[in-house]
Amino acid sequence: MQYRIGIDLGGTSIKAGVVDEKYKIISSYQKPTLEGFEIVVPDMAETARIAAENAGLILEDFHSVGVGSPGFINPSTGLLVFSNNTNWRNMPLKQELEKHIPVPVFIDYDANCAVVGEMLAGAAKGYRHVLMLTLGTGVGTGLIIDGRLFSGGDSMGAELGHVPIIANGEPCTCGLFGCLEAYASVTALIRQTNEAMAKNPETKMHAHAAKHGGVSGRTSFDCAREGDPVAMRVVDQYCTYLAIGLGGFITVFRPEIVLLGGGLSGAGDTLLVPVRKKVKEYTFASDLIELPPIERAALGNAAGTIGAAFLGDI
Amino acid sequence: MQYRIGIDLGGTSIKAGVVDEKYKIISSYQKPTLEGFEIVVPDMAETARIAAENAGLILEDFHSVGVGSPGFINPSTGLLVFSNNTNWRNMPLKQELEKHIPVPVFIDYDANCAVVGEMLAGAAKGYRHVLMLTLGTGVGTGLIIDGRLFSGGDSMGAELGHVPIIANGEPCTCGLFGCLEAYASVTALIRQTNEAMAKNPETKMHAHAAKHGGVSGRTSFDCAREGDPVAMRVVDQYCTYLAIGLGGFITVFRPEIVLLGGGLSGAGDTLLVPVRKKVKEYTFASDLIELPPIERAALGNAAGTIGAAFLGDI
Repeated sequence: MQYRIGIDLGGTSIKAGVVDEKYKIISSYQKPTLEGFEIVVPDMAETARIAAENAGLILEDFHSVGVGSPGFINPSTGLLVFSNNTNWRNMPLKQELEKHIPVPVFIDYDANCAVVGEMLAGAAKGYRHVLMLTLGTGVGTGLIIDGRLFSGGDSMGAELGHVPIIANGEPCTCGLFGCLEAYASVTALIRQTNEAMAKNPETKMHAHAAKHGGVSGRTSFDCAREGDPVAMRVVDQYCTYLAIGLGGFITVFRPEIVLLGGGLSGAGDTLLVPVRKKVKEYTFASDLIELPPIERAALGNAAGTIGAAFLGDI
Repeated sequence: MQYRIGIDLGGTSIKAGVVDEKYKIISSYQKPTLEGFEIVVPDMAETARIAAENAGLILEDFHSVGVGSPGFINPSTGLLVFSNNTNWRNMPLKQELEKHIPVPVFIDYDANCAVVGEMLAGAAKGYRHVLMLTLGTGVGTGLIIDGRLFSGGDSMGAELGHVPIIANGEPCTCGLFGCLEAYASVTALIRQTNEAMAKNPETKMHAHAAKHGGVSGRTSFDCAREGDPVAMRVVDQYCTYLAIGLGGFITVFRPEIVLLGGGLSGAGDTLLVPVRKKVKEYTFASDLIELPPIERAALGNAAGTIGAAFLGDI
């Protein structure tokens, strides 16, 4: 049997997993992400080596190692062009990893790896045109066109979270204004929740936040499910923003399926049902062209490892 | 020498041209576009046949005939899915043409044909990732990714004119609100010009409009060039809208070059200089990734015929 191995570089931990031909993770290993590029790179290689050993294999048994990373990645050059969290710029991630790993290394965005994982083994299995939005601290995007990752010219595009939905609107962490991320990330939802709470002392969201250690992406969705009218308005407005972004992207890409992943996708039908309805209002020619199904991603964190493992294959 | 033949179906005329290997139109023919699908189809075939005869050729000499059409085209199925102007729905354009034309017929959007023409023989020659916006009555878009036309899943996407730039903004002809087309088409510019004229009786644009038979896409640009402050504000605002749309599309596609075509591109530097400057403010990571040049399309109406002629080759 031919095995693949993927590394998922995260802000808090480095995870590696050996994946079999049925896309099952048969062994894994993880360690904390420490500071400093020169420490992280050998740690990534070690994580992979131990994950391989846990499956009775060595790194030479694999034809390649795939890596999913946050930040701004150029898969063609192997550079980590920029990482927000670590402030790394133009770090030769692929090249440095290959000093520690005896087979070719492929790198890509963590969100790209997630959509590859979902296409191979998750909620997008069998589809060849897939759009996935990861609703977390930011809005990550993964796009599959005709069975292959789509990242625009020089693999530096497809940053759908930073497409404006409201010109000159809310400030975004990227320095621009009005980006989808500034309206549809968990960070944005928390801002929207706080604003609604400040204006509405009667909303149940105050008690929910006090009980759960503060306002989170769940505050509004949990309280909306319980019928709190202020929370319901927050959720409705949030779903509208997300639907506006999705409508634009469907108009551009016409995916066969749209997946929502990340923390917020845990809201399930409270998110999916209104978004599906609203997307129809915000997509070009929705009376002429059938809209794609909008579903929750299925694999959670495993998607990134599985997708990374197969980067060398797609 | 191998010749190609293209048909450009327009609202007022059907044009056909024979194109040589150096992308030169060596013969052409045109006739008015009459009403009715059953009349237009044989007229298109006849236009091609006469253009071929004018070059001493017959249709059997060509390996295919390419057609650029307005409306909503599905190149995969050959259907003209919807045409605004004629209200045609799901007309089998390719199939019906092939009853009158003895070689395979390829159909695509007129804006797609234009960008193919510009890539082969015009302002985007030598580039493999090209974004072209045609600023006319609407906003047409043509996208080349890695040397091939990109139209999204099932070839029904890439309708960039109908991506929102201001959620719930100005009404668009497509039924949605806030689309780029509702801000950056000639129609939108005329609306913006009329609004500014109504509020500013002193602007020179009143005299310009009176002299030139009414308000047009040139009113504001001509008067801005002469230093009229109201016209300059109209142009500045228009360029901002266009830059917001372009910034989002560059963030998504990272083309190597952006071309502006259509009537408004005739404004030249009065349009291009401010748009280039503003796009930098509205594109993700413009400090990290070099922005593409933004240029005026070079071939005018010939781009559509040349591009159509080569649809069977790309």
